[in-house]
Amino acid sequence: MQFKRGFMMKVNDLNMKEIAKLAGVSTATVSRVLNHSGKVKESTRKKIEELIEQTGYRPNVLARELAEKKTNLIGLIVHAMTGEGIPKAVNGLNEQLSENGYSLLIAGSNGIFENEMKQIELFRQKRVEGMVFATRQFTEEHEKIMKKLPFPVVILMQDTDSAGISNAGFDNFQLAKEAASSLLSLGHRRFAYIGGPESSDSAVLRENGVKAALKEYGVYLRPALQKRGSYHIGDGYTLMKQILNEQEKPTAVLAGNDGMAVGAVNCLLQHGYRVPEDVSVMGLDDTDLAQASIIPLSGVQYSYTALGREAANMMIQGIEAGELLYEKRILPHNICIRQSVSSI
Amino acid sequence: MQFKRGFMMKVNDLNMKEIAKLAGVSTATVSRVLNHSGKVKESTRKKIEELIEQTGYRPNVLARELAEKKTNLIGLIVHAMTGEGIPKAVNGLNEQLSENGYSLLIAGSNGIFENEMKQIELFRQKRVEGMVFATRQFTEEHEKIMKKLPFPVVILMQDTDSAGISNAGFDNFQLAKEAASSLLSLGHRRFAYIGGPESSDSAVLRENGVKAALKEYGVYLRPALQKRGSYHIGDGYTLMKQILNEQEKPTAVLAGNDGMAVGAVNCLLQHGYRVPEDVSVMGLDDTDLAQASIIPLSGVQYSYTALGREAANMMIQGIEAGELLYEKRILPHNICIRQSVSSI
Repeated sequence: MQFKRGFMMKVNDLNMKEIAKLAGVSTATVSRVLNHSGKVKESTRKKIEELIEQTGYRPNVLARELAEKKTNLIGLIVHAMTGEGIPKAVNGLNEQLSENGYSLLIAGSNGIFENEMKQIELFRQKRVEGMVFATRQFTEEHEKIMKKLPFPVVILMQDTDSAGISNAGFDNFQLAKEAASSLLSLGHRRFAYIGGPESSDSAVLRENGVKAALKEYGVYLRPALQKRGSYHIGDGYTLMKQILNEQEKPTAVLAGNDGMAVGAVNCLLQHGYRVPEDVSVMGLDDTDLAQASIIPLSGVQYSYTALGREAANMMIQGIEAGELLYEKRILPHNICIRQSVSSI
Repeated sequence: MQFKRGFMMKVNDLNMKEIAKLAGVSTATVSRVLNHSGKVKESTRKKIEELIEQTGYRPNVLARELAEKKTNLIGLIVHAMTGEGIPKAVNGLNEQLSENGYSLLIAGSNGIFENEMKQIELFRQKRVEGMVFATRQFTEEHEKIMKKLPFPVVILMQDTDSAGISNAGFDNFQLAKEAASSLLSLGHRRFAYIGGPESSDSAVLRENGVKAALKEYGVYLRPALQKRGSYHIGDGYTLMKQILNEQEKPTAVLAGNDGMAVGAVNCLLQHGYRVPEDVSVMGLDDTDLAQASIIPLSGVQYSYTALGREAANMMIQGIEAGELLYEKRILPHNICIRQSVSSI
């Protein structure tokens, strides 16, 4: 079953002259109505507005943008809409931009540098007024290119301070340090850490934060009890199993995200360990996955939606000021202890 | 710590004339290099390309778009980037569009009709060449507006066949019917169904599918064992608890999504029921949450990424043909039985 549906291009191809002719007024009058400027007789205004409504006429925005050099477009590059964090950040960003009259042009890079460069080129061509950029590792190459861009840039979740490029994110070092400290303060000394990949800047910061906390307590993280995964539930399960094969078992397991923490909990329970009586588990996250855990999972609360909104605010302020002052904005976090953790 | 970073607007404001002057050639030569058309001496081409590289000059795309009436923009309206499905569909859509030279302009509506209309207006102004649209309930109001739009529209996950509007999605009735049938064929007769809200078109279709399967087997779904939630893990838990308060307990629980299925599993285990020995549980989904369940969850596999790609293909074909023929594309699904389900 197929039937044609024309696009009615004609209505959109009507120009201001034709609207004016239909209304029996000058194009200047139509323009005043469209721009809500200058005096127009009430009955004339109404007539023109009705004509605009009936014909579906829209002022030629491309032409206006060309004249005003104003597109109200903000570009966003992310690796992909995976996990919970990025989609929530996009929500917050989009809402805040939209409330301020900007639209979001979105591009996925799969984390590949060449794709990122292609997308930036596209944004230049589309004359975006600013760009929000997320990548796994912010390199010197990135820095060079960002500094040459003719529009303001805000980096998501990366430390680009030394480059003097504005960024918004969470304090990965500090939140990991606080989470580890909370386990240490409950008496745990035999520690396992299941972190993210070395290729991720934030994973490295979290690992360093954990180690800083342990150092403060004079606790040594045995290499056999330190693992790195790719943030998947299955990684948490497999790596936890490897840890359980070690002679000295940990009393506390900290995981770099909720997915791996849930995997660790499931592995422990299925191998006859009780959580938290035998082993406490905590994830550096507070996502829906934490709620899916049969043992309510301890973690770190922070808001990706707020992060997106904050990045939007920085961007809008930069655009309105006509220049982007270097600025760093760190979103707050809270350590949240639930049933998966107990004192020793 | 704040320091200024100018936007280097000047380089972008360079025009073709100035590039030509710097290169000591005519603007026609610059244009030939930019458009990769006509003969240009190799050394001249190189010189111009270097100048373009050095100055960051970009041809004025807005002006070209205005002349060609081609923006290569596709608009997308979704309620929000929540859950796993929509973000994955956006990934697929974005990848496929991007591979074909189109960019995605994304807008969130929070499922509010007035917002949807505002976003459509924005898309018209931005001269998008097509729109992909997702909403919870497709009303007559929607239909009226979609039919008047001057660009092709593809609806995501809604049956808009009677309106003759193209759509891509899953067969919610059929997949729910098959899932229920798989439980029935394993001998289950005492059924509970935890479905989605009545305000969701897809939730209604799934409920009808479940009831159709039960009818085929002559099984009656007791009203006390039929619940409706908002797809959250907590809803599954709470509603399962209500069901357990009933005198006649079910032997099989089917949930409208994985979140509610995981909530139901957790509730059963925490109240001393074994899964699947006492109660089988299945969700109409196959998301990461299913993997988070301590008992590997049975469900229905379908690909949101493939859905996004399919919608992109329909859109591109429509744009290239200059008209959108009404078409319906249903993505495949598979029933997937894991440990959470057993025969009676």
